[in-house]
Amino acid sequence: MASQKRNIRLLVEYDGTFYHGFQVQDDPSLPTIQGELEAAIATICGETIRITGSGRTDAGAHALGQVVNFHTYSSVPIERFSVALNSVLPKDIRVKQAESVPFSFHARFDAIAKTYVYIVDNRPHASVFLRNYVYHVPQALDVAAIKEAAALLVGTRDYASFQTSGSSARTSIRTVYYLGVEAEGGIIKFIIRANGFLYNMVRNIVGTLLEVGKGKLMVEEIVAILAARDRSGAGPTAPAKGLYLVGVDY
Amino acid sequence: MASQKRNIRLLVEYDGTFYHGFQVQDDPSLPTIQGELEAAIATICGETIRITGSGRTDAGAHALGQVVNFHTYSSVPIERFSVALNSVLPKDIRVKQAESVPFSFHARFDAIAKTYVYIVDNRPHASVFLRNYVYHVPQALDVAAIKEAAALLVGTRDYASFQTSGSSARTSIRTVYYLGVEAEGGIIKFIIRANGFLYNMVRNIVGTLLEVGKGKLMVEEIVAILAARDRSGAGPTAPAKGLYLVGVDY
Repeated sequence: MASQKRNIRLLVEYDGTFYHGFQVQDDPSLPTIQGELEAAIATICGETIRITGSGRTDAGAHALGQVVNFHTYSSVPIERFSVALNSVLPKDIRVKQAESVPFSFHARFDAIAKTYVYIVDNRPHASVFLRNYVYHVPQALDVAAIKEAAALLVGTRDYASFQTSGSSARTSIRTVYYLGVEAEGGIIKFIIRANGFLYNMVRNIVGTLLEVGKGKLMVEEIVAILAARDRSGAGPTAPAKGLYLVGVDY
Repeated sequence: MASQKRNIRLLVEYDGTFYHGFQVQDDPSLPTIQGELEAAIATICGETIRITGSGRTDAGAHALGQVVNFHTYSSVPIERFSVALNSVLPKDIRVKQAESVPFSFHARFDAIAKTYVYIVDNRPHASVFLRNYVYHVPQALDVAAIKEAAALLVGTRDYASFQTSGSSARTSIRTVYYLGVEAEGGIIKFIIRANGFLYNMVRNIVGTLLEVGKGKLMVEEIVAILAARDRSGAGPTAPAKGLYLVGVDY
């Protein structure tokens, strides 16, 4: 039944293990988070709708707080949206919240900051239960050195050295508000909040900080790596499975 | 290359999500933990071998410390066994330890106790990341009542009320040495150690204790349920995905 047009914002959690990332792919047989959400919305709202996410996430990366919005003429009451969508979504994608927002709201353009967490399991033996959810690094890591190096990456900087090529970003200057490193019981969490992220920026920063932790890079070298604005000087890209989009600020 | 016969004991961890339980099924197309281990041993040892596990685990149930043994003529050095087997096993099954043991050792007959953990997620919203690893119970649970009821299930008793039919056990008397209930941050862990377990015994005990937690059974009713030696008086069988075989004592 057609009704007045609304702009709906969803807060979405997903396990990205079995998906080719957030964004729909040219090959429609490849499962994506966006594709599953759009299929669920089509079922519930009876409309073919393109949704807007706050940004892409990589194949195998996860989200605790991805934000998307879309316009719909559906008459489904807003308080029923989450339950209705979850009833048709795969079990590894959950809508945690749905709300009606002004038409001015745009999930991508209005995002003012995003927070990611990256989880490294630094215990000697990998857990089968965490195989898709952490990056297992069995070598001893110098966490104090990692923390020192991390502090050097906070601020408004040109992060070109931490950008995987193929990105279309106009500028590689971003502001990292916070880059915390928490270690407990062999689990190391990297928490990073910035006004925006370049392609693979979190994974490249973590991969570089792990080189510092292994003693392959000195803490001070981070300064030169940043200044070089050259991806080749930084460390490898840490795997996507340890990466979580935790939240988006508007 | 043939060598002297040895009896090898393995300590195995697995994520049971994608398996039809530990034991090989009549239909060989159904993946099982035993089937995967035997295939890996065939590859590494060059022999077709039947392994003995400490016991079965259900489809979807997990293990942190399953124990198996098998006899082999392979000359693979014992210190290389874990790495060799892990190189061919699926990522959701890991051999944590391999050792050469006397021929008198039998993984099933020699087990004197087993410990299981069952995990309930009692937070309002299910986490996509835990969907295969915990039983999500959103209703409020009276943990104090659950603990009281759990204490009534410790000892040498006839646990027929907690045995799913279809079991071939000669007697339904077992000794539960320990049944602990730990609640923290909305996660409730049931830890149960016994000299043996009837078919579905842990899942039936947890399902019954959850009825107490929901107020559908009174603590005192546990005494009558045990005494009845009748499955129909106890609570439902909690799902396998929350169940972990933690360790086997010999």
